[in-house]
Amino acid sequence: MGLRFRPVDATFYDLFTQSANHLVRGAELLAQMLSEGADHAAVATEMREAEHAADETTHEIVRRVNSTFITPFDREDIYSLASGLDDVMDRMDEVVDMILLYEVQVLPTELSDQVEVLQRCAELTAASMPNLRSMKSLEEFWIEINRLENAGDKNHRRILANLFSGEHKTIEVLKLKDIVEGLENSIDAFEKVATIVEQIAVKES
Amino acid sequence: MGLRFRPVDATFYDLFTQSANHLVRGAELLAQMLSEGADHAAVATEMREAEHAADETTHEIVRRVNSTFITPFDREDIYSLASGLDDVMDRMDEVVDMILLYEVQVLPTELSDQVEVLQRCAELTAASMPNLRSMKSLEEFWIEINRLENAGDKNHRRILANLFSGEHKTIEVLKLKDIVEGLENSIDAFEKVATIVEQIAVKES
Amino acid sequence: MGLRFRPVDATFYDLFTQSANHLVRGAELLAQMLSEGADHAAVATEMREAEHAADETTHEIVRRVNSTFITPFDREDIYSLASGLDDVMDRMDEVVDMILLYEVQVLPTELSDQVEVLQRCAELTAASMPNLRSMKSLEEFWIEINRLENAGDKNHRRILANLFSGEHKTIEVLKLKDIVEGLENSIDAFEKVATIVEQIAVKES
Repeated sequence: MGLRFRPVDATFYDLFTQSANHLVRGAELLAQMLSEGADHAAVATEMREAEHAADETTHEIVRRVNSTFITPFDREDIYSLASGLDDVMDRMDEVVDMILLYEVQVLPTELSDQVEVLQRCAELTAASMPNLRSMKSLEEFWIEINRLENAGDKNHRRILANLFSGEHKTIEVLKLKDIVEGLENSIDAFEKVATIVEQIAVKES
Repeated sequence: MGLRFRPVDATFYDLFTQSANHLVRGAELLAQMLSEGADHAAVATEMREAEHAADETTHEIVRRVNSTFITPFDREDIYSLASGLDDVMDRMDEVVDMILLYEVQVLPTELSDQVEVLQRCAELTAASMPNLRSMKSLEEFWIEINRLENAGDKNHRRILANLFSGEHKTIEVLKLKDIVEGLENSIDAFEKVATIVEQIAVKES
Repeated sequence: MGLRFRPVDATFYDLFTQSANHLVRGAELLAQMLSEGADHAAVATEMREAEHAADETTHEIVRRVNSTFITPFDREDIYSLASGLDDVMDRMDEVVDMILLYEVQVLPTELSDQVEVLQRCAELTAASMPNLRSMKSLEEFWIEINRLENAGDKNHRRILANLFSGEHKTIEVLKLKDIVEGLENSIDAFEKVATIVEQIAVKES
């Protein structure tokens, strides 16, 4: 009987799930921010709170890594995953911030395609974090995130081409380009999380 | 009697202090660059020299890590801190460069708020490097840098909102946005240094 | 007789050479993209294929690191070098993409200076990868890449200054600035590869 027993601090899985749930909330707020007639200032305030809550979860993970003797996987991988998740939140928060600060009134409707990609990525990530315990079904996760990232990349290229098609004023192009790139950076940040999960799974399997 | 004796190459502390002193000089030159009637070309030349001097200190640290058997803390942490400090210089140098290359004549006065934050960060960092030896008073350092970074972030948001308020020509917005973001990146780079110091202190304590 | 015998998986050298050869191809396509009368859509398609081929080589290296017991140098250094090379390709691909998506018709001729720098960097990198086996002649490589990066930096500054000289429409400045920065990022990515090679050589010597 080949027992492979390794006592671990189970709460790491809970904390990663918590961290990913903050991203679900963040993506939702981003969708609200882009919806017609949104109260930009109010949504931005909520986003800021969500970002602070995410920060706290990240700090809790880091504190626990530093104070726990046995960790479920390599300390460095825990750091990477925690900061990878945190980075997604920062990127989405940046987009919300830009919409507020640039006082963009009319956002191209096609931006919502990117926010849908982000919401799907967030849900998948939150659903996958508990699977780190069994290391099962993780492959489906990173394959699907990669597929979504490819779809996001196609949207991004289409949106950029439209942006430069000549129908927008230059100052609006300047603003919108930042926002469009911010959305793409957020999707890329999810892909990085998926890559970290892949690396952990390959190492631990 | 619980002796904890560990012979170390003391000069690492001196080199880190030297590295941070280059940042004090860099922040000062940045302040000069932003002052009214500054000779942009002349200040940029001085900044370039300061940046080269900082590079040399960084290389000296890296050489010493590679040739020293016992280091005061983890080799990787020494690399991180050295490159973190170096990165601040590069960011400030970039801002000076942009002001020169974009031929910006009139800079919004509120940019000086950010440069004050940078000067304060540089002084604090230089004053804290010798404390790496005793690992004392470092917590005050990173708490204060975080406070400054928050203040810088508030300035940044206000400056950006003004930039897009409609009073600047689009080409000027394009130039100034880069400069404003460069200042924020410089402040963020100081925050990264503080985080590295925090991690070293937590590990070594 | 001082034997220093260490059985290694030789194919890592071949894979790094393969990876660098993709960069030679990428730099060539970038040169085509910038040449007068180029079919932007067609060249971009070829670039996309070259980028996919480069990705496959990177994945092959990562797979091999994960499945090989003895590696020619530290696992982490193999990852760094592989992702450093991959990053160059991504940067050059981005430039090609921007030229296509922004529908830039007239590119300043001075951009070709930067592409020449990139082509030279790619050739040098491809020629140096086999030297990782003997760890010989690598110093010449990183010194020459650094020299090229300095030349590229001078070009970059000159190009930027011209861009903001007032002869371009603002919307064109917005587009061209991204492209110009993309070229610089590509050159910087080559410099990062050279730095990784330097660190490996110092460690292993």
